[in-house]
Amino acid sequence: MNYQRFFSEAIEQLHAERRYRVFADLERIAGRFPRAIWRSGGQTREITVWCSNDYLGMGQHESVVSAMREAAGRMGSGAGGTRNISGTNHPLVELEAELADLHDKEAGLVFTSGFVSNEASISTIARLLPNCLVLSDELNHASMIEGVRRSGAEKKIFRHNDVAHLESLLKAAGREQAKLIVFESVYSMDGDIAPIEAIADLADKYNAMTYIDEVHAVGMYGPRGGGITEARGLAHRIDVIEGTLAKAFGVIGGYITGSASVIDAVRSYAPGFIFTTALPPSIASAAAASIRHLKTSSAERERHQRQTQRTKDVLAAAGMPVMPSETHIVPLHVGDPELCKKASDRLLDMHGIYIQPINYPTVPRGTERLRITPTPFHDDTLIAALKDALMETWEAVGIPFTDTQPSRVTQTERVVPLVVSKSGG
Amino acid sequence: MNYQRFFSEAIEQLHAERRYRVFADLERIAGRFPRAIWRSGGQTREITVWCSNDYLGMGQHESVVSAMREAAGRMGSGAGGTRNISGTNHPLVELEAELADLHDKEAGLVFTSGFVSNEASISTIARLLPNCLVLSDELNHASMIEGVRRSGAEKKIFRHNDVAHLESLLKAAGREQAKLIVFESVYSMDGDIAPIEAIADLADKYNAMTYIDEVHAVGMYGPRGGGITEARGLAHRIDVIEGTLAKAFGVIGGYITGSASVIDAVRSYAPGFIFTTALPPSIASAAAASIRHLKTSSAERERHQRQTQRTKDVLAAAGMPVMPSETHIVPLHVGDPELCKKASDRLLDMHGIYIQPINYPTVPRGTERLRITPTPFHDDTLIAALKDALMETWEAVGIPFTDTQPSRVTQTERVVPLVVSKSGG
Repeated sequence: MNYQRFFSEAIEQLHAERRYRVFADLERIAGRFPRAIWRSGGQTREITVWCSNDYLGMGQHESVVSAMREAAGRMGSGAGGTRNISGTNHPLVELEAELADLHDKEAGLVFTSGFVSNEASISTIARLLPNCLVLSDELNHASMIEGVRRSGAEKKIFRHNDVAHLESLLKAAGREQAKLIVFESVYSMDGDIAPIEAIADLADKYNAMTYIDEVHAVGMYGPRGGGITEARGLAHRIDVIEGTLAKAFGVIGGYITGSASVIDAVRSYAPGFIFTTALPPSIASAAAASIRHLKTSSAERERHQRQTQRTKDVLAAAGMPVMPSETHIVPLHVGDPELCKKASDRLLDMHGIYIQPINYPTVPRGTERLRITPTPFHDDTLIAALKDALMETWEAVGIPFTDTQPSRVTQTERVVPLVVSKSGG
Repeated sequence: MNYQRFFSEAIEQLHAERRYRVFADLERIAGRFPRAIWRSGGQTREITVWCSNDYLGMGQHESVVSAMREAAGRMGSGAGGTRNISGTNHPLVELEAELADLHDKEAGLVFTSGFVSNEASISTIARLLPNCLVLSDELNHASMIEGVRRSGAEKKIFRHNDVAHLESLLKAAGREQAKLIVFESVYSMDGDIAPIEAIADLADKYNAMTYIDEVHAVGMYGPRGGGITEARGLAHRIDVIEGTLAKAFGVIGGYITGSASVIDAVRSYAPGFIFTTALPPSIASAAAASIRHLKTSSAERERHQRQTQRTKDVLAAAGMPVMPSETHIVPLHVGDPELCKKASDRLLDMHGIYIQPINYPTVPRGTERLRITPTPFHDDTLIAALKDALMETWEAVGIPFTDTQPSRVTQTERVVPLVVSKSGG
């Protein structure tokens, strides 16, 4: 075994399959979101980010940044330990209360990431329950799949959002067996929404526990930002609501909320929670400030919806293959990994527009896409510039337009100028 | 299946086994480390933390806190995406270069936590290597055990730091089979150090890869804080060096360093790395500032060694059962979970000294202990106060002293006074 050669070959294989990923080196500019500095080949350029998961731009909100800076100055840069061994800081305790309140649950528990929250919580719940059967939507996120896998529990995959298929699996298991249904509210690659009420009805009928991932919905939907479950008045019908602090709330970390006993069980039994350093007080303070702001302010949500709808309308009218989406996610179908990568590269190089290509294995082969996420800060001028850049790119790279006749690029809708300068680093 | 009752009973069982954990709600005071505000029962008290993993107090270092505040103000509170989708921020790129340099390796890769870095890296390396045999020290951390388990690879556990046992397992496997030896440099519950050179010799002899966890050593050992591998001139003989940003460096996050191809393989194949939001620029900047400071300043390391030695000497002279430790970890043997918890509670309630009890399953039953971690900021007065408080507690709770005749509590070594006030929250 030649280890070095082995790993080199593993990398070469990714290149050969056109799956090798290059990360864009970005420096976001607080106060000028969605603008960022992009470093490449020794040069720096100012670009517009169109694929951020900072969906509402809260990562630059004055109250959030201030909270982070204030806590860092007062309590230092880290937590100093695991939750059990000196790391439970007061802002984290307050954050968990804020989250429980957000979803109208008895308790909340914060993790270092959304990935860990899903993996640790699902695996712990499904492992604790005797002879548990996990029923998992086929399009669930990698973190949920890891959680199910690690539980060692029996699992059945139900077809995406297919309530009839889920029911047949529940019926086969019967009322007595422990059952955990795990699903998402918003599926982030297509932007579609789960039939939450119907799933909750089935859970009642067949006595199953329910676990929903709301990472692409918290902050953005519901009168207080409690997600799709809040928007539809269904939070009380779901046992565990999982969310993230890293997307609409603009910081980092993940969490679950639920009954006091479920949360306490995960807190007490999950290795991925127990044996890891707690989030720093600065992170907890920033996240709590963001949640508090979005509980009372709907301005960000309203403008987000408006700009998303406008983006969809403008792009569709221009003949772009906008995939149907019920939410703030705007996927453009490309259907080929090479073209998808080429389009993304050209958008960045020629137009200063950053939209990461989404290829296999993140989405199925043949459904490669550009995934656009408008925010309240992507104003009408930026949307117009995006449309022009996409049209130029679509033609240059050779991606088919839809049947709709594309409108011409107008003089007032030119791409935003690029600032090009030498980099210092 | 009654889910609520089931989880309530799982919690009751922990109470019955005296394993239920209560987290101390702390607010560390930057500039006055190791002092913190403790909230309990509606009251707040100022206490001294003696069990922090912020081993050098870098969490309150001016350059670290400034870097965090500056980056938050300039780039906002979050990264805004996964590493691949808009989340790779420039401070993170710089941090990875800083880490590669620290361990004299070609490349570095940062994760959201040390737990995730071990779990994702070990599982990915062992899964990629065909028919890999993992050889794992029996006292490895939970995160490493999870990594090995998740790889699905065959594993053999070798007796703690037992080179002869390791060799017999390597010999049985033969030179051709892929083999990964995973171990720690400093074992944090006992404070002992692995025979790194002997293990590296065996790895050469039997053609095995080596993976070392240096989380309890980076920043604190070696002329530049490169850990035990640097201190002993062995970094070049270990394939992957893993570390944390959350202990001596005072922030949060974990990392690996190694050859460009190994790091690129983990970067490209590990779900726990790929599908998670990147660390915020403020965290990356703070960590880089801490690493840079400790690369050139040895003052913190020297004072850390001095205060640790003094703590061991003073406590041993007072008849405290100081367990043998080669490092900065000072474990006091108690040997009973009830007494351990009682001692910890009394130290906090009566003396304002916080030392978390370490019980099963973190350590084997019968070896329950108080684990003390002196820092450069635990001055001689605090050490004297600790000794007095421990002696009072040992007598009151009824834990045996060692044969050494305990010295009397002197007038000048009284416990530090407590500030007691009503809490606002």
